Formats: sequence, C-alpha cells, structure tokens
Amino acid sequence: RIVELIKAHFEPKNLPLKGKKVVVTAGPTRERIDPVRYISNFSSGKMGYSMAEAAASLGAETILISGPVSLDKPAGVKVVNVESAADMFEAVRAEYEDATIVIKSAAVADYRPAEIHTQKIKKSDDDSVIELARTTDILQTLGEWKEDQILVGFAAETENVIENGKGKLQRKNLDFIIVNDVTDPGGGFGSDTNVVTLISENGTYHPYSSMPKKELATVLLQAIVQEEGLDTNNDS
Amino acid sequence: RIVELIKAHFEPKNLPLKGKKVVVTAGPTRERIDPVRYISNFSSGKMGYSMAEAAASLGAETILISGPVSLDKPAGVKVVNVESAADMFEAVRAEYEDATIVIKSAAVADYRPAEIHTQKIKKSDDDSVIELARTTDILQTLGEWKEDQILVGFAAETENVIENGKGKLQRKNLDFIIVNDVTDPGGGFGSDTNVVTLISENGTYHPYSSMPKKELATVLLQAIVQEEGLDTNNDS
Repeated sequence: RIVELIKAHFEPKNLPLKGKKVVVTAGPTRERIDPVRYISNFSSGKMGYSMAEAAASLGAETILISGPVSLDKPAGVKVVNVESAADMFEAVRAEYEDATIVIKSAAVADYRPAEIHTQKIKKSDDDSVIELARTTDILQTLGEWKEDQILVGFAAETENVIENGKGKLQRKNLDFIIVNDVTDPGGGFGSDTNVVTLISENGTYHPYSSMPKKELATVLLQAIVQEEGLDTNNDS
Repeated sequence: RIVELIKAHFEPKNLPLKGKKVVVTAGPTRERIDPVRYISNFSSGKMGYSMAEAAASLGAETILISGPVSLDKPAGVKVVNVESAADMFEAVRAEYEDATIVIKSAAVADYRPAEIHTQKIKKSDDDSVIELARTTDILQTLGEWKEDQILVGFAAETENVIENGKGKLQRKNLDFIIVNDVTDPGGGFGSDTNVVTLISENGTYHPYSSMPKKELATVLLQAIVQEEGLDTNNDS
C-alpha cells in the first residue's frame, strides 16, 4: 500500500517536517441564532483530522484548530477547540506567524446571524427571516498576510469543480488548493473516502483516485513537501 | 438510590408497560439551506434516549424516532432515524394511532428555510437573508388528533419557565409537560443532568431536583404510569 511505502521512505531516518510547525483547521463552525439554535454545515472534520495526523507523523509540531466534531484527538497533535467563525479566526491568527504550513480544511461559515438573541426566540404563526452578515474571510486574510507560510486551502464544490478551485487559489493567494466535488459518491462530507485534485500555484495538477481520507492526507502532505523542497533542505 | 427502589418495585414481577407501545422522539432536527449548510439546535438527544431506555425497562414496546445525534442505540428499543422536521412528522404519524404513551422530547425546528437550494450557494460580499417558513407543529397536531394516547411534551425555556410550560400544555392539549430551564447550570442541552418540573393536565406538580438524565427518565415515566393508573390496570 502506498501509505506504507511513504512511511518506509520517511521513517525513521527522515522526518521532513521535524522542527516545523503545521497548523490545520478542521470541522464546521456553528453560528448561533439564539441560546438554542444555530447555523452549521455537514463537515465531519475527518479530512482535517487526517491531515493533522499525517503532519505529526512527518515530524511536525502540529496544531489542530477544530470546530465541533465527533472525532478522537489524533496522537501527537495539540487540539484547540472553537465554535464560531470568529473564534476560528482568533485561534488561527494566534498560530499563523511562525507556521511553515497552514492547511485550512475547516468549513467555516461565510455568514452568521446579524444579531444573536440572548433569549430563545418564541415562534409565531408567521414566516420569518434570519438577517445574515458576512464573517471575516479567514483564507483571504491569511493570503493577504502571507510571508513565508505555505498556505493550503480546500474547495468543496458542487459544480465546475476545477475552475472554481483554480479561481479560489488565485483570488486568495494560496500555494495549493485541494478541490473536491462534494456530490461525488466516492467522497465528500461525512464520507471516509475522498476524491480530490491537488492544484499548486505553479500550475501542477495531481488528480487522485478515491482513497481513504487518512491515506489521502499522507499522499497530499507528501506531495506538498516534495513540491516545496522541504524533503531536501531538511536540517534534521 | 431511588432508581434501584423503582426497579426493585417493578421487576421482575411487574412490568407496567408490558404489551403497550411507547413512542419517544429525541434529538434536534436539521433543516437544509443547501447541500452543505443547515439550521439546527443544541439538543443532544440524551433526555429522549434515556426516556426510551426507561420505557423499555418498564416492559414497553418502544419506538425511538431520533434526529441526528452521537449516542448509542438503547437496548431493546427500535430506532427510526430522521433528519428534518418533515421527516420527523412522517415518522411520528406512522406510529401514533396505536401508541399508549407518546413522549415528544425532540427539539424540532419551528422554522425551515423557505427554499432548499440544490447547489451550494456562492457567497458574495453582501449581507444576505434566509427566508424561513413555519414547519408543521407536530405536538399541536398530535394534540388535535388525540384519542386515548397519553401525550407528553417538553418545554425548553430560558425565561418564565413554569408559566410558559403550563400555557403550552393547555394550548397543545397535552396530558403532561416536562419543563426545564435550559439556562440552569444543573441541566439543559448537552448536559448529563437535568432539573425539571413535571406538570400534569390535572394540575399536579412534581418539581424534581438535579438528577442524571437516565435516573430522571425512570422517575418521570414512573410518575406518569402512576398518575395514569397504568400500574394497577395492568393485565400482565
């Protein structure tokens, strides 16, 4: 299996991310409407948790900033739990400056309720609306702040998957984007497998076949490490 | 402990709900906005799962209609999984007619997005709104349809807890309502303990102190069984 080959290649003599800090975000965010209701999304966090586990296994000091999920903490990883998009932004900002690689796999809410009610809203017989305000675009902001960080984004798309992904990579000043079609039966939210294409800022493409998320995470991180030359300039 | 006393009283010679069907709903519902986003609430399902477990332990044929939760299936209970308020209504309707007791502990969405988008909504720079439509009021409808069923509702309130609960009991034609203050530190959503008052349609009150939800479920169900005389007319 490919994952064993990769492990055999790197271990124990070569840990290409040793001494480097990798920050991974994972899971959904929850945006409160009132004390009991919220808006969220179907992200399970599995892909991000797998990326964090892979980073730790390649020797990185790994920080996993996680929205609410039902997953066990990966071994060798520091987990920071957050709820809302605003919490997520604060936690990422605190870890960004000295990070070597930042992998933004969380499905952060684009919108939050404009007002959070402090009491449970009583229902009435009428229809209603929730007024929404934009959250801070974390990936956009990290792209603007970027110095030496390798910034990796995800695009969960339901149509024009590759084009939307490439557009996002350029617009957000990313180094890599991992695009997948969440409607593909071989992958997506909640699934244990995923079908993705890794696109680099240099224009290289890696369309991967359906793989378990844990195996895919190692493959993706190894490709990023190679493309950035982190395996050859490693001082360990 | 009270739960052991109750068990000793009923078992093995006396299973007051033997041959009777108890339907319990539990957990939140999820109302989809588009293929990846939804509106939900913080209900953990613990109280409903505990009520179902207690019903089964008192001998009932128990049907648990459950929204998305992270809980193990209770022993001796048939679980029907649902997602939305509309799914929940269909599932309850199918089980209602021959039920002896119906316990509506699910936190069903009062509102759903008026339109479910089939593609992921692309974000724009603008603020936005979600137009909402009322869901069917399941408890109200069951109250209108009620023949011999014993109908038990829950009220999760953040203010005027008892008054709001009594109003709901009368308005919805319930036999019992279990009211709790979800802002009380000794109970509420996600907690393993709960502080509730059981109010009957006859005007009796049982204000219970903070108890683990599993123990509380047995206490509540036993109080309902006694008040309805199900323990004395039992033909088993």
